[in-house]
Amino acid sequence: MTNVREIAGAITAPAGYRAAGIACGIKASGKPDLALVVSNTPASAAGVFTTNLAQAAPVLVARDHIRRTGGQARAIVVNSGCANACTGEEGLAHAATMARQTAAVVRCQPEEVLVASTGVIGVKLDMSKVCRGISEAANALSGGGGSNAAVAIMTTDPFPKETAAEVSLRNGRIRIGGIAKGSGMIEPMMATMLGFITTDAAIQPPMLHRALKAAVDSTFNAISVDGECSTNDCVFALANGASGTRITDAEYDSFVEALRGVCETLAVGIVRGGEGATKLITVNVTGAKNDADARMAARAIANSPLVKTAVHGGDPNWGRLIAVAGRSGAAFMLDRATVRIGPVELFHEGVPHDERSDEAAAYLRHRDISIEVNLGADGDGRFRMWTCDLSAEYVRINAEYRT
Amino acid sequence: MTNVREIAGAITAPAGYRAAGIACGIKASGKPDLALVVSNTPASAAGVFTTNLAQAAPVLVARDHIRRTGGQARAIVVNSGCANACTGEEGLAHAATMARQTAAVVRCQPEEVLVASTGVIGVKLDMSKVCRGISEAANALSGGGGSNAAVAIMTTDPFPKETAAEVSLRNGRIRIGGIAKGSGMIEPMMATMLGFITTDAAIQPPMLHRALKAAVDSTFNAISVDGECSTNDCVFALANGASGTRITDAEYDSFVEALRGVCETLAVGIVRGGEGATKLITVNVTGAKNDADARMAARAIANSPLVKTAVHGGDPNWGRLIAVAGRSGAAFMLDRATVRIGPVELFHEGVPHDERSDEAAAYLRHRDISIEVNLGADGDGRFRMWTCDLSAEYVRINAEYRT
Repeated sequence: MTNVREIAGAITAPAGYRAAGIACGIKASGKPDLALVVSNTPASAAGVFTTNLAQAAPVLVARDHIRRTGGQARAIVVNSGCANACTGEEGLAHAATMARQTAAVVRCQPEEVLVASTGVIGVKLDMSKVCRGISEAANALSGGGGSNAAVAIMTTDPFPKETAAEVSLRNGRIRIGGIAKGSGMIEPMMATMLGFITTDAAIQPPMLHRALKAAVDSTFNAISVDGECSTNDCVFALANGASGTRITDAEYDSFVEALRGVCETLAVGIVRGGEGATKLITVNVTGAKNDADARMAARAIANSPLVKTAVHGGDPNWGRLIAVAGRSGAAFMLDRATVRIGPVELFHEGVPHDERSDEAAAYLRHRDISIEVNLGADGDGRFRMWTCDLSAEYVRINAEYRT
Repeated sequence: MTNVREIAGAITAPAGYRAAGIACGIKASGKPDLALVVSNTPASAAGVFTTNLAQAAPVLVARDHIRRTGGQARAIVVNSGCANACTGEEGLAHAATMARQTAAVVRCQPEEVLVASTGVIGVKLDMSKVCRGISEAANALSGGGGSNAAVAIMTTDPFPKETAAEVSLRNGRIRIGGIAKGSGMIEPMMATMLGFITTDAAIQPPMLHRALKAAVDSTFNAISVDGECSTNDCVFALANGASGTRITDAEYDSFVEALRGVCETLAVGIVRGGEGATKLITVNVTGAKNDADARMAARAIANSPLVKTAVHGGDPNWGRLIAVAGRSGAAFMLDRATVRIGPVELFHEGVPHDERSDEAAAYLRHRDISIEVNLGADGDGRFRMWTCDLSAEYVRINAEYRT
């Protein structure tokens, strides 16, 4: 195992990064809505993006920049309060302007800037506010600004998501930091909402991309709040090499493991702060024909409104778990299936154990809930997902989001 | 067009049928919980069933009976309040006993009885109550009992679903009647919850089966309350020929059209009475590459919690419709896509028209809402689905269903 230690400092914990988060007036509330993250030197860059076919302008621009530079970047600029999605040619021009303006203040090429936006779909950015904001953020950049950036990318998030880790490798020490946001429209097919990772490791762009994809697959891509894949999902990683520690094939697995840990902390934070969420639910599917089947069943359970309301109400309703597993499309054998709510086995190889309902109901009073469904299929496929309960508060938030 | 006229009488409107609905004590509330529908003579029978791999005992027994008789039946017996699902060998024996007891009182073979159950999963039937109930229901059978049967199959349904039609064909008149139930765990993959259809047409079992499948595909299989396909879904059709009017190839299309109308009335009734529903939403997807793509996009929209909460809150949030269409898996071209809420075009070929938001918001105050999304793909594929809004009441109902 790699030696990984959690540290403070978020996205600015690794050496050679500065960040800022300021309010430029996009949000009517006056809350922070513009974040800037800058690497002091050119960094390897990788990104994973939403698979939604309605892609927001910043997604198109950021992907294009990574392609054109071959995976090099100096800065990430992000606004919240407006998704700049479904905004046509004008939206594309706005995203390009954000990159150009950022490049001017941090003195790099526009292609070395990655752009992201989050907020309401179909609304145009007020570019005079955004451009003033970028200048202001550049003046506010500091080596301790990671937490401010984490706050400035929030929309309906109840709290910021940030983490950082120091990793001891065979050939030296590196740090990895990250921030993320996301509260609704969360079921990434590729990456979820916004996540930004920095590291002072030295790693070539193709290897950084491979590591990011591997880490995201079992973290950001394994969470759901409401089964909705957004138009703006993306996760960027920057690696500037400031630690002097190089990641080669020998260190690759350790690097991925550490990166995975940072991504998991952020992804689980997104679920914990899911719209209206009162409980974090870890869904473990086992006994599947293969991992793909396990993922399919876990996804169905994590998105089931009947499962999510039952957990919300503290009802150990194993029947709903069986019903969802049965309709999920995964191979499933009722006679060999098993359901556990926490440590309590309520259904074992086709036989109900309702005499244990009270024990399971007591367990469901916790904030962090674990559910395991063994599909009873011939195989050892497994997958873990994180989701949250479905509350009346979710309905209130989303019935009133724009009004 | 076939001449179809709506008439009273529900499932007993066609000639030669009697029905009853009584309370036998399965429901703690003392409400009606056992329904019996009997054809005075042997009838052609067809059934479509849930595709959930966790199939309830009555589903297994009813399917087996239709297979063994080659599509002949005399009676349908249904209990509510207990799904007899995930109940193992004992559950299968209970479902078989329900058929045997019914056969004894209506004087037919057990295989000529179709069995259905609905209610909580994983609870065993109290067979002494059920058997007493079947005898009592047999004594209560009457030619006007269709509405009582419709009430006795309800669980969380806010109102009974029943309809009947008289159809003038080239060669005579027939009647078709039906009842259905379903309020939660509704997104059939084959049929939804429980639906029972009678007709006095004379039609051979294979043709009846074909007609039922065709009618169900665009009605019961085109509705969703919460995207949950249950363990007990089934629709049965009985045709006893008492009208003396025979359905052959010449009348087939007219018969399907009339059957479709009856199924649509029942299916839309299920959505209107969906758990916590305050609005009926008709989702029309057009401009799809093909009908399969249109169905995929319609299903994603109909199950989207963000779309359903927006309609609940009266928010003409076309951005959520675009986001869902884009992630649905269907071919989608943002630049050519169009969104209409009622008569109001809010997004036309990639361009937002938010100046029409107030008009759309006024439209959303209606109880019956229509939404159209043109995917802008090369093709004329289309599909229509019905769904309902998502309210805090849905959460309350399902957080407290068993507790």
